[in-house]
Amino acid sequence: MSGSSFGTLFRISTFGESHGPGVGVIVDGVPPGLPLSEEDIQLEMNRRKPGQSEVTTPRQESDRVHILSGVFEGLTTGTPLGIVLYNQDMRPSAYDDIRELFRPGHADFTYLAKYGIRDHRGSGRASGRETAGRVAAGAVAKKLLAQRGVSVTAYTLRAAGISCESFDPAVIEKNPMRACDPVAAEKMVARVKELSEIGDSVGGIIECRIQGVPAGLGEPVFDKLDAELAHAILSLGAVKGIEFGSGFACADMRGSEHNDWMDSEGFLSNNAGGVLGGISTGQEIVFRAAVKPTSSITVKQKTRNIRGEEREIVTEGRHDPCICPRIVPVMEAMAAIVLADQFMRQEARGRKNQA
Amino acid sequence: MSGSSFGTLFRISTFGESHGPGVGVIVDGVPPGLPLSEEDIQLEMNRRKPGQSEVTTPRQESDRVHILSGVFEGLTTGTPLGIVLYNQDMRPSAYDDIRELFRPGHADFTYLAKYGIRDHRGSGRASGRETAGRVAAGAVAKKLLAQRGVSVTAYTLRAAGISCESFDPAVIEKNPMRACDPVAAEKMVARVKELSEIGDSVGGIIECRIQGVPAGLGEPVFDKLDAELAHAILSLGAVKGIEFGSGFACADMRGSEHNDWMDSEGFLSNNAGGVLGGISTGQEIVFRAAVKPTSSITVKQKTRNIRGEEREIVTEGRHDPCICPRIVPVMEAMAAIVLADQFMRQEARGRKNQA
Amino acid sequence: MSGSSFGTLFRISTFGESHGPGVGVIVDGVPPGLPLSEEDIQLEMNRRKPGQSEVTTPRQESDRVHILSGVFEGLTTGTPLGIVLYNQDMRPSAYDDIRELFRPGHADFTYLAKYGIRDHRGSGRASGRETAGRVAAGAVAKKLLAQRGVSVTAYTLRAAGISCESFDPAVIEKNPMRACDPVAAEKMVARVKELSEIGDSVGGIIECRIQGVPAGLGEPVFDKLDAELAHAILSLGAVKGIEFGSGFACADMRGSEHNDWMDSEGFLSNNAGGVLGGISTGQEIVFRAAVKPTSSITVKQKTRNIRGEEREIVTEGRHDPCICPRIVPVMEAMAAIVLADQFMRQEARGRKNQA
Amino acid sequence: MSGSSFGTLFRISTFGESHGPGVGVIVDGVPPGLPLSEEDIQLEMNRRKPGQSEVTTPRQESDRVHILSGVFEGLTTGTPLGIVLYNQDMRPSAYDDIRELFRPGHADFTYLAKYGIRDHRGSGRASGRETAGRVAAGAVAKKLLAQRGVSVTAYTLRAAGISCESFDPAVIEKNPMRACDPVAAEKMVARVKELSEIGDSVGGIIECRIQGVPAGLGEPVFDKLDAELAHAILSLGAVKGIEFGSGFACADMRGSEHNDWMDSEGFLSNNAGGVLGGISTGQEIVFRAAVKPTSSITVKQKTRNIRGEEREIVTEGRHDPCICPRIVPVMEAMAAIVLADQFMRQEARGRKNQA
Repeated sequence: MSGSSFGTLFRISTFGESHGPGVGVIVDGVPPGLPLSEEDIQLEMNRRKPGQSEVTTPRQESDRVHILSGVFEGLTTGTPLGIVLYNQDMRPSAYDDIRELFRPGHADFTYLAKYGIRDHRGSGRASGRETAGRVAAGAVAKKLLAQRGVSVTAYTLRAAGISCESFDPAVIEKNPMRACDPVAAEKMVARVKELSEIGDSVGGIIECRIQGVPAGLGEPVFDKLDAELAHAILSLGAVKGIEFGSGFACADMRGSEHNDWMDSEGFLSNNAGGVLGGISTGQEIVFRAAVKPTSSITVKQKTRNIRGEEREIVTEGRHDPCICPRIVPVMEAMAAIVLADQFMRQEARGRKNQA
Repeated sequence: MSGSSFGTLFRISTFGESHGPGVGVIVDGVPPGLPLSEEDIQLEMNRRKPGQSEVTTPRQESDRVHILSGVFEGLTTGTPLGIVLYNQDMRPSAYDDIRELFRPGHADFTYLAKYGIRDHRGSGRASGRETAGRVAAGAVAKKLLAQRGVSVTAYTLRAAGISCESFDPAVIEKNPMRACDPVAAEKMVARVKELSEIGDSVGGIIECRIQGVPAGLGEPVFDKLDAELAHAILSLGAVKGIEFGSGFACADMRGSEHNDWMDSEGFLSNNAGGVLGGISTGQEIVFRAAVKPTSSITVKQKTRNIRGEEREIVTEGRHDPCICPRIVPVMEAMAAIVLADQFMRQEARGRKNQA
Repeated sequence: MSGSSFGTLFRISTFGESHGPGVGVIVDGVPPGLPLSEEDIQLEMNRRKPGQSEVTTPRQESDRVHILSGVFEGLTTGTPLGIVLYNQDMRPSAYDDIRELFRPGHADFTYLAKYGIRDHRGSGRASGRETAGRVAAGAVAKKLLAQRGVSVTAYTLRAAGISCESFDPAVIEKNPMRACDPVAAEKMVARVKELSEIGDSVGGIIECRIQGVPAGLGEPVFDKLDAELAHAILSLGAVKGIEFGSGFACADMRGSEHNDWMDSEGFLSNNAGGVLGGISTGQEIVFRAAVKPTSSITVKQKTRNIRGEEREIVTEGRHDPCICPRIVPVMEAMAAIVLADQFMRQEARGRKNQA
Repeated sequence: MSGSSFGTLFRISTFGESHGPGVGVIVDGVPPGLPLSEEDIQLEMNRRKPGQSEVTTPRQESDRVHILSGVFEGLTTGTPLGIVLYNQDMRPSAYDDIRELFRPGHADFTYLAKYGIRDHRGSGRASGRETAGRVAAGAVAKKLLAQRGVSVTAYTLRAAGISCESFDPAVIEKNPMRACDPVAAEKMVARVKELSEIGDSVGGIIECRIQGVPAGLGEPVFDKLDAELAHAILSLGAVKGIEFGSGFACADMRGSEHNDWMDSEGFLSNNAGGVLGGISTGQEIVFRAAVKPTSSITVKQKTRNIRGEEREIVTEGRHDPCICPRIVPVMEAMAAIVLADQFMRQEARGRKNQA
């Protein structure tokens, strides 16, 4: 139980369901003296919010951030941040039809199996809306990372069967797919719209690059940097896999190919993805995550109801035909939260060489 | 800090370095009344131990398990198990040559960067030897799972570029690769020996299937079943990726393909890999992990020493040309530990429908 | 860091400062299916709120409880409760005078020393107002305990130098001191008013009795029932000591006096206070806590300002001349939270005899 | 469950029963580079070990410390310390008579109620022997504190009804009671021997003073310095109460008496015991703990057996007529562990004023 918290020193706890009064997060462990305003957080929140383009859901949420505690005269005080967002565009009655149905690909069945009760309105706690709190916390984490010269950049690498063939960080926020290649982005959008029109959805691959991390972050043997990142990223509902550096391709490589050699300047390659033995190498940290196609589709599907009777279902509602562009800021947030926590754990060793 | 513990209710803490006096584990949270002997644990330990075949390291370790506490008259008492294994076939002087060198692919550089000090003997804490404690704890977890009708089976699915094309659980423990296809296993062994002779190594993919898990395990939103498994599996030094069910292939699927439909009997497919919304569906749980080629090779490589000077290195010593067969029991152990913990967390909700 | 959470399975995280926008709590780990309304929580909140009598502060707070998540159609869902209370009767400017002064007995000096920054308005995070979130969480814990036949009753045992000489639980909520003896209560009120008029304050002793706890709660060796209760109770700002059963008097007893004998019916005495070896005995659990006199007084005191200059101070504002009656519900809440957590930890052992 | 670990960053996990093969501890989170030998730990262990004088048990244990990991070439490496002590003077058969009896004042009844099974040999896990691991960990914590100029001194303040009337730290280790007043010590010894001869035992009060702690340690609102110390000290089986500074006497004080005034030099008194709002003030930290009389006495007592039948019992065996002198080093160890952890948690805020 108590699965709604994450982190050791920089620790977040989220609450909230899709169609209840609101969602939010407590961020405990923020060092005092950090300049922080609601607007700082709002900027990240706006990247995640629905209704941004034709490849995302038309649900309208202002996603207005309210900081209830932890900031005084523009600076964090070292006490927990309490952050709330009220739900607005709630249409719980839109979900009356599915009250007793298990939507394929959704957590309806498993939540009922686990808890014996289920808030069916818009997936309840299993909704992507829960991630708003994570993005708010991630915005704070990013400020801590910026102080340390670290930046986190995620983007759509592949979607709807189309891969980016170039990498230009400047274009990511300028196309609705948040892809790193503008040409591929256009093709992706076209394909997503095509499938969206027939009520279907697509998946994709998000890549994340973290720059500026010094060598030495990560807490072996269980809280290794890659293990914690995997935990954080797999805690996102739509993610089905993660790989670092060369990733699954390593399975077909020889040691002599995969090992990253060094010379006096540093490493000569980065098959490891910036992590060795669970500790950062000082290189760019690179991972990719597999994002499944959105489960809510209007294609007719087979399912059953809570009494075990077979039914057909068409998931109406306002859904993202491709969740990739909205998952990008969430993934950045989770990566930033892991790193902020790891920095503090490492910095707690302060006197290491002063025995 | 304190990264050497894992789990919430079924909680393990490991200690030990490769060439120090010994390694071990404390397992806290084991329910009382479980029959347990050193022999129960030894059986799993023997599957992990070195020197089993020509595709693994010739290092000889009896890996004799000593239970120092927590068992009385053949039953667990509910108090922590203290388990120790003494190191025997230690040859620290064999590592004198690399005292000041960073071996490519190893954690030598990162441990020194992190701690400012490094036990260079056989990788120290970063050695695979640390996993002996995990396997001991996993043996206990497996007993708890057996009480609940759950079994965990891992095996080599691909290695040295060769994939299994059939699945026969009966053959896994009968071939040195722990592959699920005896024909593929033979080819793998041949290829591994070939590469081993020229001092190189290979990677592979391990698949893990968990049967008998009822619907309802997993603790959203951060301690989801797949997130915890990812954390556990990525905490193994050689693992560079994990995927569930269809895994990375989901990126190219449509929602109408990937969604697992249901009828009155249950699910009609298992693209999800047995986990929806981070909670078990009652189906088989399936994941795959990418294992990098062993870093220790005798091929000559470029590196530098602790003073930043360029050097060449040939990693002598006793190493596994392919670590896959020895990682199989470790991966099973980690999966079993996650499941035992999740069972207890779920069972703590005992009265759920009795309000 | 991250000191704002408490509990393992029934886990609370509070946020909020005295004169910020609001205070609140996340309660994670509440089993699903528990009937819960805002009114259930409000009842406990009203016992803690200011302005109840002439022995407490005249600050007016409606302390209106808002549940933002975790309840659906009148039942808990197993997901975290998000609970918020907005601050209303804020007069931050009333604190302008003390912006640079350290009030004796308050945490002004230590917060500034720790964080390098201090929200001086009404003690900020160190205010008793933070305990509103604890009382909300405690109301939920009490419902879980009621399901198990457990009740928690605290009361003022001594205040202003006057001790209760009888114990009648029926009178506790009927006198402004929440004392267990109505005659003593009257004397206490008279004395408190007398001292209040000269601007001074008084301390006291709260006793807490917990009935209905079966033998077996407590998690040796560190999370013993009494150790966790001590942690919880000492986390209240005004508490300076705790003792169980015979308490400090045990120091002068012989083993033959202190040991609680048993016969076939059970224990013949309860010097232990219902806890042996950190585990409940099945008897009433009894502890007492020392509550210091309220620090805010209008008697002129010596202090210094943030620049180290000597100053005199008279703490104006709206304060409780004796905090005992308002601490009673908070102490009950903390005890209930510890017990709810310990019940779940024990119940997670479900199958203990079914090996 | 999992109650055998303590601490957040400096984290200890103990294992072991009184008459099993051994006891021990893992200390995780020790910063690298700290000089540490088995001898450093042995010195503290010898202060706790049995057989030191006629007021303690004659059980003979060499209590030889074995460090299995975490130290390399005389320095800690940042990896977990694994420390083991083997039990030697085990006489499990001495406990055959009490196999089915509940010894008054012992945890026999509660352990059986909790776990449904009980290692009856010398109290099993509930034995004071478990604290050997704590003392080992405390020795490491003390070294970290020494680096920061902090010392922890505990001593017997009162025992057998006799109070110390002077305080001389130099005499503490020179008298068998570890009292701070040599005259009182002599009287205590005489009285303890007198009672010991008639098979009875006595309790006492231990006082602990911690010097050199800067202002700013403690993690509100739940992990306050005093709350954590209370948790740690109440986790010792014989302790029934704790108080800070003026302690329970505060109940009878007025605010104008209890508040510690400041001038430009600092505080003018220390009624708070060095902690305000859960954070250290920079003054000496002072607390006292009530220690119950040893439960094992040879006076004939009433009890029952596991079948509920009334019995008489005389607890033979080798016991301490007054446990105070042996609890002194254990209490110092627990206080040192709390402080080491709090230092690291505070130091993790490193950049606090560098926003």
